[in-house]
Amino acid sequence: MKLSLITLSALLPSAFALWPLPTGLSQGSTPLRLSKGFDIKIAIPNAPADLVAAVQRTKGFLTHDKLQALVVDRGASSASAIAKAKSLPSLTLSLAAAPKGGSVKSISAEAVADLETRAEGYTLTIPADGSGAVLKANSTLGLFRGLTTFSQVWYDWKGTGYTLSAPFQISDAPKYPYRGFMLDTARNYFPVSDIKRTLDAMSWVKINTLHWHVVDSQSFPLVVPGYTVLSEKGAYNAESVYTPKDVKDIVSYAAARGIDVIPEIDTPGHTSVISKAFPEHIACPEAKPWASFANEPPAGQLRLASEETSKFTAGLLKAAAGLFQSKFFSTGGDEINANCYAKDSETQASLTSSGKTLAQALDTFTQVNHAALRSVGKSAMVWEEMVLDNPVTLANDTLVLVWISSQNVAAVAQKGRRVVHAASDYFYLDCGHGGWVGDFPAGNSWCDPFKTWQHAYVFDPVANLTADESKNIMGGQSLLWTEQGSPANLDSIVWPRAASTAELFWSGPGGNVQQALPRLHDLVYRYRQRGVAASSLQPEYCALRPGVCDLTA
Amino acid sequence: MKLSLITLSALLPSAFALWPLPTGLSQGSTPLRLSKGFDIKIAIPNAPADLVAAVQRTKGFLTHDKLQALVVDRGASSASAIAKAKSLPSLTLSLAAAPKGGSVKSISAEAVADLETRAEGYTLTIPADGSGAVLKANSTLGLFRGLTTFSQVWYDWKGTGYTLSAPFQISDAPKYPYRGFMLDTARNYFPVSDIKRTLDAMSWVKINTLHWHVVDSQSFPLVVPGYTVLSEKGAYNAESVYTPKDVKDIVSYAAARGIDVIPEIDTPGHTSVISKAFPEHIACPEAKPWASFANEPPAGQLRLASEETSKFTAGLLKAAAGLFQSKFFSTGGDEINANCYAKDSETQASLTSSGKTLAQALDTFTQVNHAALRSVGKSAMVWEEMVLDNPVTLANDTLVLVWISSQNVAAVAQKGRRVVHAASDYFYLDCGHGGWVGDFPAGNSWCDPFKTWQHAYVFDPVANLTADESKNIMGGQSLLWTEQGSPANLDSIVWPRAASTAELFWSGPGGNVQQALPRLHDLVYRYRQRGVAASSLQPEYCALRPGVCDLTA
Repeated sequence: MKLSLITLSALLPSAFALWPLPTGLSQGSTPLRLSKGFDIKIAIPNAPADLVAAVQRTKGFLTHDKLQALVVDRGASSASAIAKAKSLPSLTLSLAAAPKGGSVKSISAEAVADLETRAEGYTLTIPADGSGAVLKANSTLGLFRGLTTFSQVWYDWKGTGYTLSAPFQISDAPKYPYRGFMLDTARNYFPVSDIKRTLDAMSWVKINTLHWHVVDSQSFPLVVPGYTVLSEKGAYNAESVYTPKDVKDIVSYAAARGIDVIPEIDTPGHTSVISKAFPEHIACPEAKPWASFANEPPAGQLRLASEETSKFTAGLLKAAAGLFQSKFFSTGGDEINANCYAKDSETQASLTSSGKTLAQALDTFTQVNHAALRSVGKSAMVWEEMVLDNPVTLANDTLVLVWISSQNVAAVAQKGRRVVHAASDYFYLDCGHGGWVGDFPAGNSWCDPFKTWQHAYVFDPVANLTADESKNIMGGQSLLWTEQGSPANLDSIVWPRAASTAELFWSGPGGNVQQALPRLHDLVYRYRQRGVAASSLQPEYCALRPGVCDLTA
Repeated sequence: MKLSLITLSALLPSAFALWPLPTGLSQGSTPLRLSKGFDIKIAIPNAPADLVAAVQRTKGFLTHDKLQALVVDRGASSASAIAKAKSLPSLTLSLAAAPKGGSVKSISAEAVADLETRAEGYTLTIPADGSGAVLKANSTLGLFRGLTTFSQVWYDWKGTGYTLSAPFQISDAPKYPYRGFMLDTARNYFPVSDIKRTLDAMSWVKINTLHWHVVDSQSFPLVVPGYTVLSEKGAYNAESVYTPKDVKDIVSYAAARGIDVIPEIDTPGHTSVISKAFPEHIACPEAKPWASFANEPPAGQLRLASEETSKFTAGLLKAAAGLFQSKFFSTGGDEINANCYAKDSETQASLTSSGKTLAQALDTFTQVNHAALRSVGKSAMVWEEMVLDNPVTLANDTLVLVWISSQNVAAVAQKGRRVVHAASDYFYLDCGHGGWVGDFPAGNSWCDPFKTWQHAYVFDPVANLTADESKNIMGGQSLLWTEQGSPANLDSIVWPRAASTAELFWSGPGGNVQQALPRLHDLVYRYRQRGVAASSLQPEYCALRPGVCDLTA
């Protein structure tokens, strides 16, 4: 059978549910169903345990995803075609070449490899003639991505998994190596189970990075060996913590799903809570009025000009880094409040005695911290202020998160810095939920309005960049700050919007919102089948009738 | 012990968790705990079963609400005071006077009584000296409201229910008789279990009306005897319906919790879906472009100028009304699209043959429908257009929902109409979630921004009204339209914001947001104990420290 190459722009607005859309995809129009005895075979000697587990999970999805096609009759009119369709007996996984050094690396090992060497591509062939499907990749991580795609192919009609679009020939690989989601677990705490469910949901759209903003001024839930007093005094309560065992659990759960966990301990700002355990290291702790000392309550920043505080911070970062497998560790660096230091006599004394400006002290502080991380093999991630507003010395491999405005991306890229898109004007999932500051009825979300999936979807990651500067774009992420976030609304705030950004950075920009929407509806309904409470994007009337609720329909 | 009268404005920002705040309240500062053998006694012969059940539920809350006080140590520093405190042995319920006619009316019967005669007041005395608490009211409905208050008094410390604020003397009654919540189950469907959970949550803040916008242009989930083809052809699927048994279940569940269920079948607009079963009655069904024929897709309106359609509609409304116990039935009347009728040759022919204008035809249509409802003992509820934009003949007892703008309240009240506040600029819970129309990346919520609890809380129900006009204000409600709503975000979108409006209309305007916030945090945490996923309003850091996250703190 001759296959026609389907491009993004030529895709009909069908309910065809692959997300993110494979970068190379051709499909047919032949019905095909999963055989009753359908099996997934791993043609790899001594397959890693996490690949075996991923295959088991995939089989579970094939059995338990009772996702009917999102068409008015939910598939009824296809029933006879499905009944008469050929059956797919199997999917066979294999590596395209024998592994270097002879032993196969696990998904978990591949997931935390250097960004540039992370091999996530795969090819997937699903014939329509009743012969077996074939999934090939250069790595187990690539095979996992392909399994994820495979599990999205099938709709359910009365217990039978089927597609109307066989055969498939997919040759897929991400456009950007960094595709992330950031979760803030400091403003409000999230149990490990919520984080794990989120990791699963992330993996279903091939997000490969959890940027874990684990602590902040409000609470310190991370139990750091040697620094446990921080969580003892700074967690909301004894149960609202992440023990080293919890972290290991989360990191390994993530890695087995192709996700690298990059922790963040924001410095020198956003550290008020450290004053509960180490008051000597914090300037302006809980100073009032808070608005004069911080962007949100409570105020408090590390005394960056103090050698002792610098040593303390470097030790803390190093100890915390030991809990994680990622090559990266974020030291933050956003929203440094100058007034806090101006009013802190200890900081002023330190500056005077060292003869440094605040900017010079920040540079020294940052270098000490980053050197400590480098000593344990970690590269730094920082917020954009470390390059633009308060520039400091940074290693070339540093990842820079642009958050204040997408307009700042060009400036960071022009400096030759590696950029991760995280702009509040596109990717902040918390925007638009009104003001949360108390005693302020007129207050609104500072980054209003709400960022819709469509708004993020049409973002251009290389706007105003030269070809050379564009090479500095590593990818992007959506972010959930949790002043108003909690387990109560985690799923519904994050999904499906984080998936929109995931497709942008996997499939690349230029996608068409009209053609994407039916697939995104599918994703919402599939996520619900899998226990993730994704929000409805439209009335179900619209979800069942692609295009009819478009603006000019 | 002498009690000091605590007024709203004098209340300290404590974690004292009554919501809505009783209109008459005095409290002390003596610790008191619930006795291990604490019991609730009903000193009423032949107590109605729904009162007995309410007592059982209250006992359940006392046992299962493990709500610690929202203070930094969560109550630890009060442990010895709690251990030494006197125990409350019992709460005794009685009616203030022998019931008229000799038999006690059930909560369920009281809940659906006329708005003006609904007796919701009660007195509650909780002594600090170890003697029993006493709850009195003129009705079982009042006793139920008092039980609700009683269940909010207690925090938990290691399995013991306690308060630090005994004795209590409460004399409470609502400022407004109508305190509602509107749910749209047509844009997206909600299972009965979600509605029941919402009814429970409503009852916990003494909301007494569910305005159930059950059907709309997108779907017709209501199974109406004699008109079942409407749901057969118009529900999203065979499971996404409310059968007469479901409705009875919902109505009785609501009534037992002091809630009247007012159904709405919106007419003549918002009826596109009727065309699936009765195409002869719908003008411009699914006409394109939809924006020329309706405010949202799909277009379609009842042929109001047709006598047959009028007869059909009256029959449908009457049959639907038979499923409900409420004295009220909403016939809607919002967003009538003139172009739809201008382009509908049947409507134009009807107008020509009858010699009526569209406005006259609408008046006749409405009168026929309302007469049908009156014939089965129902009064009408309508949207504001029926008074302002497209005025029609209405009975004096009609309730008018002002939704377009709070600025329109005065005009409706000036016409002597009974007003229910439902303004989109204060009470629409769906605002601020971005645009949902497809193929429109720049789209935003039409009623942006998000309406915060604080914004609604400071609303003045009688702004710009004379004393006489103020008497026309029956109360108000928050509303959830569900273009982007679904079971996935029901709890977190509605709660705790709907509680803010509930307090406004129970306790009356003039509340202070600074003093209300700690109580509202308490409500959030208590709701979670009871299985309702209420959203966090602030970081937990703020919830534990009243006032520190206020704007000028």
